[in-house]
Amino acid sequence: MAKMRDLESVSIDPQVQFLLDKARNENVLTAFDRADMMNICGFGSTGVCCRHCLEGPCRIAPNGKGPQTGVCGADVHQIVARSFLNHLTQGSSGHAEHGREVALTLLEVAEGKAPYQIKDVDKLYRVAHDLEIVTEDLSMNEVAKEVALKALEDFQKQTGIMNWVKLRAHEDSLNTWNKLGITPVNAHLEITKAVARNAMGCDADPTNLILGGVTMGLIDGYAGLHLSTDLQDILFGTPKAVKAKYSMAVLDEKKINIAVHGHIPMLSEKSVEWSRRLEDEAIKQGATGINIVGVCCTGNELLMRQGVSVASSFSSQELVIVSGVLEAMVVDIQCIMPGIQQVAECYHTEIITTLPYVKIAGATHVNFEPSEADEAAQEIVMKAINRFSKRDPEKISIPDQTVDAYAGFSTEQIVEALSGLNGEDPLKPVIDALVSGKIRGIAALVGCTNPREKQDYGNTVVTKELLKNNVLVVSTGCAAHSLAKHNLMNFDGLEYCGEGLKEVLEAVGNAAGLPSLPPTMHMGSCVDNSRPADLLTAIANRLGVSMNELPAVGSCPETHSPKALSIGTFFIAHGIDVHIGVSPQLSGSEFVTNVLYGDRTDEHEVNADKLFGGKLIYEQDPYTAAKLLLERIDMKRETLLNKLVAK
Amino acid sequence: MAKMRDLESVSIDPQVQFLLDKARNENVLTAFDRADMMNICGFGSTGVCCRHCLEGPCRIAPNGKGPQTGVCGADVHQIVARSFLNHLTQGSSGHAEHGREVALTLLEVAEGKAPYQIKDVDKLYRVAHDLEIVTEDLSMNEVAKEVALKALEDFQKQTGIMNWVKLRAHEDSLNTWNKLGITPVNAHLEITKAVARNAMGCDADPTNLILGGVTMGLIDGYAGLHLSTDLQDILFGTPKAVKAKYSMAVLDEKKINIAVHGHIPMLSEKSVEWSRRLEDEAIKQGATGINIVGVCCTGNELLMRQGVSVASSFSSQELVIVSGVLEAMVVDIQCIMPGIQQVAECYHTEIITTLPYVKIAGATHVNFEPSEADEAAQEIVMKAINRFSKRDPEKISIPDQTVDAYAGFSTEQIVEALSGLNGEDPLKPVIDALVSGKIRGIAALVGCTNPREKQDYGNTVVTKELLKNNVLVVSTGCAAHSLAKHNLMNFDGLEYCGEGLKEVLEAVGNAAGLPSLPPTMHMGSCVDNSRPADLLTAIANRLGVSMNELPAVGSCPETHSPKALSIGTFFIAHGIDVHIGVSPQLSGSEFVTNVLYGDRTDEHEVNADKLFGGKLIYEQDPYTAAKLLLERIDMKRETLLNKLVAK
Repeated sequence: MAKMRDLESVSIDPQVQFLLDKARNENVLTAFDRADMMNICGFGSTGVCCRHCLEGPCRIAPNGKGPQTGVCGADVHQIVARSFLNHLTQGSSGHAEHGREVALTLLEVAEGKAPYQIKDVDKLYRVAHDLEIVTEDLSMNEVAKEVALKALEDFQKQTGIMNWVKLRAHEDSLNTWNKLGITPVNAHLEITKAVARNAMGCDADPTNLILGGVTMGLIDGYAGLHLSTDLQDILFGTPKAVKAKYSMAVLDEKKINIAVHGHIPMLSEKSVEWSRRLEDEAIKQGATGINIVGVCCTGNELLMRQGVSVASSFSSQELVIVSGVLEAMVVDIQCIMPGIQQVAECYHTEIITTLPYVKIAGATHVNFEPSEADEAAQEIVMKAINRFSKRDPEKISIPDQTVDAYAGFSTEQIVEALSGLNGEDPLKPVIDALVSGKIRGIAALVGCTNPREKQDYGNTVVTKELLKNNVLVVSTGCAAHSLAKHNLMNFDGLEYCGEGLKEVLEAVGNAAGLPSLPPTMHMGSCVDNSRPADLLTAIANRLGVSMNELPAVGSCPETHSPKALSIGTFFIAHGIDVHIGVSPQLSGSEFVTNVLYGDRTDEHEVNADKLFGGKLIYEQDPYTAAKLLLERIDMKRETLLNKLVAK
Repeated sequence: MAKMRDLESVSIDPQVQFLLDKARNENVLTAFDRADMMNICGFGSTGVCCRHCLEGPCRIAPNGKGPQTGVCGADVHQIVARSFLNHLTQGSSGHAEHGREVALTLLEVAEGKAPYQIKDVDKLYRVAHDLEIVTEDLSMNEVAKEVALKALEDFQKQTGIMNWVKLRAHEDSLNTWNKLGITPVNAHLEITKAVARNAMGCDADPTNLILGGVTMGLIDGYAGLHLSTDLQDILFGTPKAVKAKYSMAVLDEKKINIAVHGHIPMLSEKSVEWSRRLEDEAIKQGATGINIVGVCCTGNELLMRQGVSVASSFSSQELVIVSGVLEAMVVDIQCIMPGIQQVAECYHTEIITTLPYVKIAGATHVNFEPSEADEAAQEIVMKAINRFSKRDPEKISIPDQTVDAYAGFSTEQIVEALSGLNGEDPLKPVIDALVSGKIRGIAALVGCTNPREKQDYGNTVVTKELLKNNVLVVSTGCAAHSLAKHNLMNFDGLEYCGEGLKEVLEAVGNAAGLPSLPPTMHMGSCVDNSRPADLLTAIANRLGVSMNELPAVGSCPETHSPKALSIGTFFIAHGIDVHIGVSPQLSGSEFVTNVLYGDRTDEHEVNADKLFGGKLIYEQDPYTAAKLLLERIDMKRETLLNKLVAK
């Protein structure tokens, strides 16, 4: 049996340490400990194993020993490239289905079939206008229907370019993709084609496979991120600055606690509504009320729009149950550890799955359809209420001390805040700060936490290093949980900012009647990585340059999910450098790593930096990673400033 | 270095042995030898390894040692079920893209944009009628356009049931699928959903995952097989009985030899046309003409419709090059070993890839679009002609002795042949023979050859055992290559048939003016597995019973491809038992194997035999496999005959 890491090596969050200690004392196995027990395969972790047919499985030893091709003749570069494409396809498929589910919901709402209301009518009309929908003679619902149908076309059209690519992509980026023939036609078509090209006996050209992967990045970005964010903002409202609470301590012993977990906001929005409507039922059971807490990105969605408190990021999701006070964990899609069911069976928690294609053996299933959203949410909240009496008092132990955090920084909210300084040209203060060097660059700190990594360590170190060097940091996903929990989304964290950055944050904050903006700005869930992309597109357009000329980077220090790889590829396709702190399982092929990690100055024939102007930076150490990111920021800064001067 | 098998253990085909011996003498590595060199992974081959995220890779030791769940908490049953679903998704995606490419071609032809003609106008109108297209006021091209658009809807619609499911599925089967909620909506949507549910943190219920796999089987069957066959018949003609030649000896030393390899007939049909038109250019180069030979299913397509000779099935594809007389191997999609390029570099052969998403590093790429079909085919044939002078005379060695084979047995052709006995009710002779026992059952011998297996051995042994026991055998794919090469598609093979079967074959043959039907009937390529399905549907409908009540089985003794798993699942979904002779990499989970291999009499809660009336039979030994298939045939025969008597 492998030795377990000590608590300090598992997470830098004392509350996570506290609950992991409790779990260990109660002989409950969670992901952190399972990670220690797993003997990682040297073939799989370098991407050199292939299980695509029944001739194998085949493995190529990276040390050159043994056969250097699979039974079919595939060499290690093809195998690693296919392995990469496979991860990107898995990542983008989840986000594409997210986008499509939201589009179908909007359609049902527009047709009066689903019990939601359009909350951001302005955004509806803005999106409709940009999609070139003639709205003059249409009712609001008719406009919404047209927008939903345009969205669904991005899963249906057989020729041309996706509507959302036309809607949101920077023109220079689109030109690059068109030249390479990688612009997507529709999400489902491209995903199927990616699966098909990756199957036995199909695409055997590693460069072509990687370019196919870039198409998956664009699917993730446009059918997933942008489409989801736009339609969710229309349906549930565009986020505005909000103050909320973080940490496991947001659980409330006196209340019925329900964790909402997953990614899509349709059910969780209704769960919040019904938790209010069923308050009396909770009181009848002896509780003082109902407390909804967020986990992962469903948590982020509710945080951004409703100010709901956030209990946990990905890697510690099981520990919410270990508190002994969680009545139900309601899950929708993605990042849901099957382990939650095994952990729940040690406590009184009911795991409730809600979608037909995401079930967990042993869990309760309450089917969710937007048209029956109220019925489902009511049933789920009632199930949680009925669990309250089953608590085992001996197993209850909640950490104390929540952390305040500001969230809700949609692009619209940021622009509004900036308008306080310059109502005519809101982006000018940012651009002036970029030019003067008060802001050295912009970074999106994104991605996950991973049970194999020390939780929050990579995310916070990279962030603090960047802040110290006056890089403006925005954040999404579980990475944002890490920053929020460690005071990087409240004013205490301003101490980590360099002087120039601090000055800008305070100036913008003051104009909005606040002491400052927080040191990092929470832009939302993983699909809300559209928001940093939107912000950068707006800045590039304002400057009249391409995206790949901006001193902007993405960093994903603690990812576990292939979705982070596909989102990262989306940014690289725009020429934004992306750092990843966890091995993307590519090291078995020098060819593939050269294409992805290579520099524009390298002699290799083709690489991402040359094609797109951005590359993948794999670096485990967060201090070194920050250094590498700053170097790339400085390189792009210099070129950009020269160009602006020349203009 | 692993010891290579002796030639007799690699293949029972002496010509393949001959060329493999040549390859070994010339130090050319081919798939048979690579298979011997590969050290197979015990984890991967039992389905217990998971590489779906960056927490792992994780592996569950099947012996119960070490951790029994992955880092996320997935247990071995989830992992194996996801592994199975992954294979089915890969298989069905290839066939779905095949179907869609044909649909797009039909659309372009109908719009006058692609240089093909509709060859089977009757079938066009039959399909249009069955799709409920009102054809009265439409031109033929307008009808073709409507049919193509209906086909494309099966990749676009967001609700309802696929058109081709409604068109081709037996009503009882459809009812079963509807009750289980697994009937597909559109192919691309279901494939994307399958990828999404299989990704990290999504579906964690092995039963649900396997049912998702059944949906993939239906996608393969309807968006892949049926749709492709129907539209290909419309475009290129419905096959009629044809006599052709098999074996490596179909290569002709005096001619320019071009192998067409892959699966879709659009380019290869044009290649045949241009090989005739450019005959003079070949003669100018000193050749006596141009010889097109088929490999894999592109070979089957040309065989069925044009009587083109067939050189090789999957596992020996590289050996066609080793003959030293192959000027070009032109490939489209699927089952194309990357190894052909490495082998081609040892000879003068040019490998030509033709589709943007299926390239091979180092090969020539000539892009094929239906609209530019003539230009592409001309360029390709000219490239082959120009290679002729580059032959190395010292490396030339072609086996002699071709084998005659009858092919072209579309369902339509079989029904026409049967009409010779009973014009009013063509299926009656088959039904009478089934009832009387002259025909004990019906088997489709399908699938591949696999370089790890002794080529043609399993395919021919199972077939001979079934024939001996009076089972009517039809065949498709590379399995049909095995049967044809070993005299099972010419009259010599009648000696293997039991008396009852022989009597029926001769009676039908005589009525058609032939000495007999061949012992087994070649129904086409792998996508033409629609044809046996159609035949069985027609028989079930004529008898007024469900498909799962027929004494019918499928057998796939030598598969290598996940497509065989998805096609097999399509048959199991109809309640047709399917035998597989190569491990489907599921043995790590007793739960999964119970669901798939379990019997209706088992106590396990749910299995395929109970849900659908058919199951997967995994048996490596072909004699035992035939015995198991006969047992199932007899079990279903008895029930069926009792039911028919009761009627």
